[in-house]
Amino acid sequence: MWHASILTLFPEMFPGPLGLSLAGKALRDKIWRCDARDIRAHATDRHRSVDDTPCGGGAGMVMRPDVVDAAMDAALTEGVPRPALFLTPRGRLLDQALVRELSAGPGVVLLCGRFEGVDQRVIEARGLREVSIGDYVLSGGEVAALALLDACVRLLPGVMGAAESAEEESHGASALLEYPHYTRPVEWQGRSVPPVLLSGHHAEVARWRRAEAEKITRERRPDLWARHTGTETSARAIAGQTAAA
Amino acid sequence: MWHASILTLFPEMFPGPLGLSLAGKALRDKIWRCDARDIRAHATDRHRSVDDTPCGGGAGMVMRPDVVDAAMDAALTEGVPRPALFLTPRGRLLDQALVRELSAGPGVVLLCGRFEGVDQRVIEARGLREVSIGDYVLSGGEVAALALLDACVRLLPGVMGAAESAEEESHGASALLEYPHYTRPVEWQGRSVPPVLLSGHHAEVARWRRAEAEKITRERRPDLWARHTGTETSARAIAGQTAAA
Repeated sequence: MWHASILTLFPEMFPGPLGLSLAGKALRDKIWRCDARDIRAHATDRHRSVDDTPCGGGAGMVMRPDVVDAAMDAALTEGVPRPALFLTPRGRLLDQALVRELSAGPGVVLLCGRFEGVDQRVIEARGLREVSIGDYVLSGGEVAALALLDACVRLLPGVMGAAESAEEESHGASALLEYPHYTRPVEWQGRSVPPVLLSGHHAEVARWRRAEAEKITRERRPDLWARHTGTETSARAIAGQTAAA
Repeated sequence: MWHASILTLFPEMFPGPLGLSLAGKALRDKIWRCDARDIRAHATDRHRSVDDTPCGGGAGMVMRPDVVDAAMDAALTEGVPRPALFLTPRGRLLDQALVRELSAGPGVVLLCGRFEGVDQRVIEARGLREVSIGDYVLSGGEVAALALLDACVRLLPGVMGAAESAEEESHGASALLEYPHYTRPVEWQGRSVPPVLLSGHHAEVARWRRAEAEKITRERRPDLWARHTGTETSARAIAGQTAAA
């Protein structure tokens, strides 16, 4: 069973939205488990404090290294070793490749920061992988953890119905954004479904979708498009070398 | 009051984690309101269906344009006009600039997709802004909506305690990732807080933090670093022009 432990000051936020829909069904089906652990349970002083003022001054509070370390210890004693991640805007950006890597493993331990941040020494001592879900700032790591878990859980075997759904989608194997979708009614407010999609010619439908996916990726995300064309070029180069060898 | 309407098949996911902590307090303080609306309430057939098979074939189901359109109508009749966003991996990437723009406005209407996607015609007819929270795939738009709302709400006036917290953080005004944080104990597991932070010299602390923020941005995010140095160069150029004029 894929095992997610979340270290947080708000354990009641979990599983939250992941208790419903696809992830919720997978939770009930015991495809994954989710234990949210209260960092405050590892405070040692009589005020149960988890944070203190930043050395060097400044606004906000910083999570203490000793308290976070004790919470990590407690989470990691259970089961097999799992990668430990700290969710922070300073981290490497989460992408579908990292999601695939994490969902293929035994699970994750996620540290959710609050306040200004977490003492740098425990991040280093624990070798935490710092991961960001995007270039914006949240009030804490909890919603970021929900996003990472939702992305991982849907890739676990048995969670999604049709395997093709994961292959054709945005950030799938092709690294292209997805083509536009249409359904009934065929005519709606004077707007029609593109005729090719009603033609019944499977090859033409596939060609149209591929062209649309390429167009939208080129227009909206030149960065992804450059990576995509780079990969295609390398793939052709490798194929050429193999043929020549 | 900042007003968020969410169109979803899982209204019970909201406010969810945003009912706690910073966003939860702001909700109780009536700094913002959150109404989650069930798209299914706008289905018109006796099966209350909201989706249908994709034109052209393929896996998954697509949300019907007429049902989504009716749900949008109902959400937009209330209060002042608000920007309507569709959360999708095909969208422009959410960043702190868009967060700032949205939080400065009257609120948002967020459409959360499920299944394969939403019929392209209603996206176009409604002029929905397509926004992605990152290059990974979620089981639906709901967790993405939670992330966007969390990011916006913390910027609303009266939500955060100290104004500086928002200025100095990652993706703040400087476009640099944040410097590392330290707190007590000063010695922990043989690791010390950097002496400069204990020196009491405010200017030296500021210089050290600036250098660390630049170093970590350069190492981890060459893309942000390039943007940052570009901005600095332009700022100097403009300052120079003004001085010369």
